[in-house]
Amino acid sequence: MTPRLHELTATQVLELLQNNTVTVETYARGLLDHIKETESIVKAWAFLVPVGERGPLHGLAIGVKDIMNSKGKTTTTEFAVTNSGPDTTNPCDPKRTPGGSSCGSAAAVAALHVPLSLGSQTGGSLIRPASFTGVYALKPTFNTISTEGQKAIAPIFDTCGFFARCVEDLKILADVFGIEDDEPARDMLLGEMSIALMKTPMWPTAGPGTISAIEAVTVILRERGIKVEEVSFPPEISDPEELDRLQQVITQAEARISFLREYRIDKDNLAPEICEIVENTARITHKEREQASDRYYHMRRIINDWARGYTVILAPSAEDEAPVGLGDMGRATFNTMWTVSVPLYLSVTLQADILQGFHMPVVNIPAFSGANDMPVGVSLVGPRFRDQQLLTTSLVLARVFRARVPRQLSDPS
Amino acid sequence: MTPRLHELTATQVLELLQNNTVTVETYARGLLDHIKETESIVKAWAFLVPVGERGPLHGLAIGVKDIMNSKGKTTTTEFAVTNSGPDTTNPCDPKRTPGGSSCGSAAAVAALHVPLSLGSQTGGSLIRPASFTGVYALKPTFNTISTEGQKAIAPIFDTCGFFARCVEDLKILADVFGIEDDEPARDMLLGEMSIALMKTPMWPTAGPGTISAIEAVTVILRERGIKVEEVSFPPEISDPEELDRLQQVITQAEARISFLREYRIDKDNLAPEICEIVENTARITHKEREQASDRYYHMRRIINDWARGYTVILAPSAEDEAPVGLGDMGRATFNTMWTVSVPLYLSVTLQADILQGFHMPVVNIPAFSGANDMPVGVSLVGPRFRDQQLLTTSLVLARVFRARVPRQLSDPS
Repeated sequence: MTPRLHELTATQVLELLQNNTVTVETYARGLLDHIKETESIVKAWAFLVPVGERGPLHGLAIGVKDIMNSKGKTTTTEFAVTNSGPDTTNPCDPKRTPGGSSCGSAAAVAALHVPLSLGSQTGGSLIRPASFTGVYALKPTFNTISTEGQKAIAPIFDTCGFFARCVEDLKILADVFGIEDDEPARDMLLGEMSIALMKTPMWPTAGPGTISAIEAVTVILRERGIKVEEVSFPPEISDPEELDRLQQVITQAEARISFLREYRIDKDNLAPEICEIVENTARITHKEREQASDRYYHMRRIINDWARGYTVILAPSAEDEAPVGLGDMGRATFNTMWTVSVPLYLSVTLQADILQGFHMPVVNIPAFSGANDMPVGVSLVGPRFRDQQLLTTSLVLARVFRARVPRQLSDPS
Repeated sequence: MTPRLHELTATQVLELLQNNTVTVETYARGLLDHIKETESIVKAWAFLVPVGERGPLHGLAIGVKDIMNSKGKTTTTEFAVTNSGPDTTNPCDPKRTPGGSSCGSAAAVAALHVPLSLGSQTGGSLIRPASFTGVYALKPTFNTISTEGQKAIAPIFDTCGFFARCVEDLKILADVFGIEDDEPARDMLLGEMSIALMKTPMWPTAGPGTISAIEAVTVILRERGIKVEEVSFPPEISDPEELDRLQQVITQAEARISFLREYRIDKDNLAPEICEIVENTARITHKEREQASDRYYHMRRIINDWARGYTVILAPSAEDEAPVGLGDMGRATFNTMWTVSVPLYLSVTLQADILQGFHMPVVNIPAFSGANDMPVGVSLVGPRFRDQQLLTTSLVLARVFRARVPRQLSDPS
């Protein structure tokens, strides 16, 4: 059966557009019709204005998160900071959250509204919704894509990234954004690969879906002759409480500066959580901020040096399947134990989030499902500035996983 | 004689506005009339749209550099990267450059068009034009003011700062932008102060105006009983060639990402220097960028720890008086000797620029003049996140300098 236009990946559509098999107008109409049919349930779009200008992705439809300067917008939580708000639903089950904060961008790709979308991650705002909605995502190495035109939250962590329905499509955007490694990426044979399984210090928060996904992926890899070595963080950076506290201190100290403008102009319409950050109710000092930055810098170097010894690091993408309900967009229930003197709402100690602070590239592979048949992703993590190599490796490993796990929630192949 | 409205500092005007002695309209008309009289020579303004909205600085006129989202704009070099372009003149001598890249913002304050203006510094774009035009400037600690809405160049160095005609006015903007130290700033007695005179490793490029200003300031301080200790950079960071190379590597690697958008959209209208950065003709690798960042991070810690031992660091603000001509906006003639494999145009190794990379706050005090009676400033530098203390100390020291050097080019007192 011929797939309908909205079911095609970006790679497939670009080929048809370049062949003149499909016109831009036909493709756009196909997507808009499909969006019209499903948007009343999914609610992925804050604004939708069909526009078209000729560029390297001419004719392709891309969803853009509503913290970025653009015309057609997908939903986000308030300034990508709060953990609730939009009524966007999870296309795999409308009673469940798509995860935040890039909820609309993840949902729009999962619902086949668009083959590609842009999101952003300061904590876990790309990888978590990708895992919850069953799509691929790339959070690139920090500062490989300009964040200009994107609302700043914590500039030292803020990263622009993408959602897609296959690794090839992630690569299209990586290329358009000029992401290059120092060395050309190389296709490795499975037998050459050496994978570090890193459950992270947050592993005690993992639910059954994530535990079984990590077990399954390990079995699959080993069956294919790939070396998988379970590793821990180096001892000096294995205290989850410290990792969380450092990230909070830096995020809040930076967010305080980023939101001063909104606070001065219209604080009555700003979420109370954001007002508290600007008012610095947690009383974070510059000294603490500097010490946290120094500590993070030190850890970042250690973990990146260490990562270079492996083809890729395998890590959990989220605690478990997407929770039921739209109010809670995936905050870990174990958070309070990590929380020191900082407000609860930023304490999203999901598995992949700590890797954000290390500025490393992460790909979510939506290969598994949990107890309720909802998607559960796994993260593949590379050293900094090896994004193209990570994509090349992810392509191979995604095929390995798909070969064993035939049912894919939104996989076109 | 009563000063005319445009001659008043921001501090003075705010008092009159708050007293209802002067209305916003009268003040605005006074400035616009004065701008009309002098703009044909100064050419500080790219766009000028009188607007007024009620805020903490209601009624005050502020010039805004034309790389920031706003309505009334002062001139800049192209994207604050190139070193020529606007025909803005130096209000002290229209045959001379006001310095770049924040040329219009410095000139507008020096020409009494406005009492305050916003500029930005990635290398020396605030301190150098302040020194050349004889105005005060504050380059705050890195990331104490959000750079959102400001064109990104090298985000790890990009800093928003201000020009004014007195230290009190700099403090008005520092307060509005929420700049706070951990400890309240304290007024120190002159005898308690301990000043480090740091000629910097770039001292061999200093011209006679700067040499005599540094000599004069040292004499003045010692006469007033202030301890001045001449110091050098710690030996591990005293190689000017290395300092320059590291800054080039990071600036260009980051600028490459920042300008990809402009390059993709309209490279034919982009300065060739900027195209070369995006094309990476200098072939800077990620590995070099990471090594340079690590090295800078290490140096930044050393120099900041060291700075905490002094009340303030005294350093040159620029090589000398503003050069004659508008084409060259102040590039050092000795640059080629520092330049390794990178294009010349970014090699602006002026004195205060290297402190930018250390993320430390800097105030320019326009206290002296050179052989042609043009202004020559000196820089006061503090440790990171002690901006308010630096302003408090600068206020005291500016008075000490003014008491000895009565002629002030654009000083209202």
